[in-house]
Amino acid sequence: MKKTITGLLLLCLVGPLAWAQTSKVQENLTLRSKILSSDRKYAIYLPADYETSDRSYPVLYLLHGGGDDQTGWVQFGEVKHIADKAIADGSATPMIIVMPDANTGVRGYFNDVRGKWRYEDFFFSEFMPFIEKTYRIKPEKRFRAIAGLSMGGGGTLMYTLRHPELFSSACALSASAGPVDIADAEVRLKRTIPDATPEEVKRYYETQNAVVLVNNMPEDQKKAVRWYIDCGDDDFLFEMNSLLHIAMRKKEIPHEFRIRDGGHTWTYWRTALPTVLSFITDSFHQR
Amino acid sequence: MKKTITGLLLLCLVGPLAWAQTSKVQENLTLRSKILSSDRKYAIYLPADYETSDRSYPVLYLLHGGGDDQTGWVQFGEVKHIADKAIADGSATPMIIVMPDANTGVRGYFNDVRGKWRYEDFFFSEFMPFIEKTYRIKPEKRFRAIAGLSMGGGGTLMYTLRHPELFSSACALSASAGPVDIADAEVRLKRTIPDATPEEVKRYYETQNAVVLVNNMPEDQKKAVRWYIDCGDDDFLFEMNSLLHIAMRKKEIPHEFRIRDGGHTWTYWRTALPTVLSFITDSFHQR
Amino acid sequence: MKKTITGLLLLCLVGPLAWAQTSKVQENLTLRSKILSSDRKYAIYLPADYETSDRSYPVLYLLHGGGDDQTGWVQFGEVKHIADKAIADGSATPMIIVMPDANTGVRGYFNDVRGKWRYEDFFFSEFMPFIEKTYRIKPEKRFRAIAGLSMGGGGTLMYTLRHPELFSSACALSASAGPVDIADAEVRLKRTIPDATPEEVKRYYETQNAVVLVNNMPEDQKKAVRWYIDCGDDDFLFEMNSLLHIAMRKKEIPHEFRIRDGGHTWTYWRTALPTVLSFITDSFHQR
Amino acid sequence: MKKTITGLLLLCLVGPLAWAQTSKVQENLTLRSKILSSDRKYAIYLPADYETSDRSYPVLYLLHGGGDDQTGWVQFGEVKHIADKAIADGSATPMIIVMPDANTGVRGYFNDVRGKWRYEDFFFSEFMPFIEKTYRIKPEKRFRAIAGLSMGGGGTLMYTLRHPELFSSACALSASAGPVDIADAEVRLKRTIPDATPEEVKRYYETQNAVVLVNNMPEDQKKAVRWYIDCGDDDFLFEMNSLLHIAMRKKEIPHEFRIRDGGHTWTYWRTALPTVLSFITDSFHQR
Repeated sequence: MKKTITGLLLLCLVGPLAWAQTSKVQENLTLRSKILSSDRKYAIYLPADYETSDRSYPVLYLLHGGGDDQTGWVQFGEVKHIADKAIADGSATPMIIVMPDANTGVRGYFNDVRGKWRYEDFFFSEFMPFIEKTYRIKPEKRFRAIAGLSMGGGGTLMYTLRHPELFSSACALSASAGPVDIADAEVRLKRTIPDATPEEVKRYYETQNAVVLVNNMPEDQKKAVRWYIDCGDDDFLFEMNSLLHIAMRKKEIPHEFRIRDGGHTWTYWRTALPTVLSFITDSFHQR
Repeated sequence: MKKTITGLLLLCLVGPLAWAQTSKVQENLTLRSKILSSDRKYAIYLPADYETSDRSYPVLYLLHGGGDDQTGWVQFGEVKHIADKAIADGSATPMIIVMPDANTGVRGYFNDVRGKWRYEDFFFSEFMPFIEKTYRIKPEKRFRAIAGLSMGGGGTLMYTLRHPELFSSACALSASAGPVDIADAEVRLKRTIPDATPEEVKRYYETQNAVVLVNNMPEDQKKAVRWYIDCGDDDFLFEMNSLLHIAMRKKEIPHEFRIRDGGHTWTYWRTALPTVLSFITDSFHQR
Repeated sequence: MKKTITGLLLLCLVGPLAWAQTSKVQENLTLRSKILSSDRKYAIYLPADYETSDRSYPVLYLLHGGGDDQTGWVQFGEVKHIADKAIADGSATPMIIVMPDANTGVRGYFNDVRGKWRYEDFFFSEFMPFIEKTYRIKPEKRFRAIAGLSMGGGGTLMYTLRHPELFSSACALSASAGPVDIADAEVRLKRTIPDATPEEVKRYYETQNAVVLVNNMPEDQKKAVRWYIDCGDDDFLFEMNSLLHIAMRKKEIPHEFRIRDGGHTWTYWRTALPTVLSFITDSFHQR
Repeated sequence: MKKTITGLLLLCLVGPLAWAQTSKVQENLTLRSKILSSDRKYAIYLPADYETSDRSYPVLYLLHGGGDDQTGWVQFGEVKHIADKAIADGSATPMIIVMPDANTGVRGYFNDVRGKWRYEDFFFSEFMPFIEKTYRIKPEKRFRAIAGLSMGGGGTLMYTLRHPELFSSACALSASAGPVDIADAEVRLKRTIPDATPEEVKRYYETQNAVVLVNNMPEDQKKAVRWYIDCGDDDFLFEMNSLLHIAMRKKEIPHEFRIRDGGHTWTYWRTALPTVLSFITDSFHQR
């Protein structure tokens, strides 16, 4: 019996050498937002050596879709497993992945047209500064990426189109890329603001439609960001994504575009994530 | 005991004949066309056991692009190597692959608007009957597929849209899917017929534009064919292919659609071919 | 008895591998040369389906080194094994590989300065036409490649530099790229022609030195051929190969250049051959 | 008893999270330099067992390129991931990797010709002694290697050519190997010292040009160091690297030389690093 215990003890001492340090995910962290007058949640992925090194890391802001919250990419997106694997096999560089919650109270990543709920202001004025101060993050555009799915793909598109100075790469998966036309904009807007005025509808359309933003892009911004856009052939968002590809091609904005087999599902996004991590790593790496 | 040994000896002598066998490609065959008043060439792939079996086989009509001829898929498309490999690994069933030449004299797979060069009539009235009589081919729609690239992708689309009763599956790669609009149709048509009338331009547009044909598709044909459409994100034909996807989705025509990384190149088509062979095999097989 | 049966079973299992259709190498074929007033030997590799198909094939002229003959690439270069493998795994397209003998009587691939031994004339006026008439070879530049090692690397360089209209790709391995300077040219030439005149030395230098030929290349030929040049870091031919790389870079002639670990050995050339076959296949394939 | 065993088992499962050991990278460390009258930064890689063992380790000084700093090899070079992997698979021995910053204030690894900025003196008189006193490093030549890219490849060459008694192996990647000739030396020097005298230009040329240093190498130093030199075929530094190879071959200085496919990019250097780690490990190990 003693022999067995000694064996176990040996295992205890030797084992750890084989079991390397691992990454950590925390999914119920909070910060206070003055702009939104509320506490906001976020989840974070810290790579395996974050605690033992004193390095600074590149950062990916990874946005969830409508109806989900900051835990979506953790639970359904398998972000820990997939990022660990990509970092271990060298296809992605160690990075911090930040997943904000856009689901508390009011949905979505944008300011509303009347400026009462200002999530976008919160993101850029409070959330990003807080994150990049709290964690060891390299605070340069080159090391900052953004990605998201569905509603978060829309956030990815709009944030990057409006702030090409902040992100070196942007990956929009199955993106909700805005209302197709003014009529669609009116229907959508009046869901939350029944008495929306025609000017508000027009402003909503022009600030939320990715094709309009692409068509209005200044020449000198056309190569400011590396784009990766991906939407399944069975996805209900096929139209705006296809039109966005056409618009970017006609405007000669370099971008990767994919239509793979699949619908608006977590299977699609999980299979996209390794490519996303590798794609943004190419920006972090300076080829 | 002796019997067993004789059996083994027989196996030794006969077995290798069955195993030694490989597929064959012939690329300079000819048939006489009355409709075109000329000899037309074609290439053919016969699977490994074609000569030793007496089975009939499914057939794939595989169309080349503009500027190429019946040898294009053989030389640049590696059809033999890729089909051998797909059949060997079980992802495709043994089939006959027929590659007609659409490059002798006048280019393209269609009748001209004035009915002087009637390639489409040749294909359906002379070529297909000749092929299916000359080789051991199963003469049912279920066992007949069509695929092609660029100009041949256009041929694939139009032939199948006009004859859904003939093909169980159709795969259009980097398809030239017709003029974008009437103005484009006029420019294209007047290249070969400088004095084309407005009615001819209109007829040309309506018979060559895949989106128009899709929009006019009768309800009862919407599930008649299994479609596979694939066009690279760097291909110059991005617009019509993306619009075709949108039109088919809106019309609720089931189809597989892909946009992969790449341009209008043989590398793209070679990497598409295994998927094409596997896709059409799903139709040949009873499900 | 049991033993015998086991033997037969073994034969059954092993036999087919030998009987299966495979590529063929013939290494003692002959043609009559009027120009050289002698019979010349050659070896040839015919791909697996050459006899059963009626296709035409691309062709690679593969030149041996000094002191060797047409059997060198067969015996020491393992051309059959390596080409079979490359074709089977799809990294090379089926092609005919022709290996002329440049070792009978007088060594080398060139005309001598006094025009008595005119091997180069034989190659272009008699050998190539004979080969491309005798075998089913696609007779266009696009489908014709040349490669060689050492003295045959020199042949590859000079033939292609003088006939860029004939070869789509050229691969020079451990190439003997000519005399380094006039003094070197004189030493070399006087080995065979002790009374060579200064003009003959000059002509010899200018027609045999690859750097001189590169520096004199007309602008419109700079992209006529796809070049692949490879020479081991321990090879005694390091100097001219390195200078050739410098010259081609300065002249802006697109080329692949490699210095790998190794010397002037068959191990080096055998490990180069798969890359050569893949490189020239890219030209045959029209990417 | 069973309880104890269960406890031990629990410890086995829980313990590793706390004990798990990995390599560490610190990238913002500092030391004070009297020679440079400033603080200098450096990054360091400590192998997985550095903290738990009490061994001393071999050391690699790994130099960054122009425009980068001590974090370059960490971020873009993936030194942690690549070294971890190489040590884990046994192709490299555990070692300490030191990455000094040569980018604060004045760029480059050398003393300037007027002796005002004396980085090279700092490196040998302050930095190396500090590092080898602060960390558990084996202080013998056999266990000391140096490598670098571009400007750092130049540093690697010059440091080792001037101090062959200090490094057992030296790996110069895409090295900036000095001015090609006196005229080039003058242009370069006058960028920083507009009134440089002819003697200064000459001294600059003779101390910075690797080929000159190689040609002047005393006979008894020719085998003092194991050299590994590597420069892509598309690199703009092709000329000096090729000439260096020629000079070393002619001088009969043993060295490994490679020209692989690629340009002046991090992709090239990342793919070189595993070979570098393996190459220097051969020196560390007693042969």
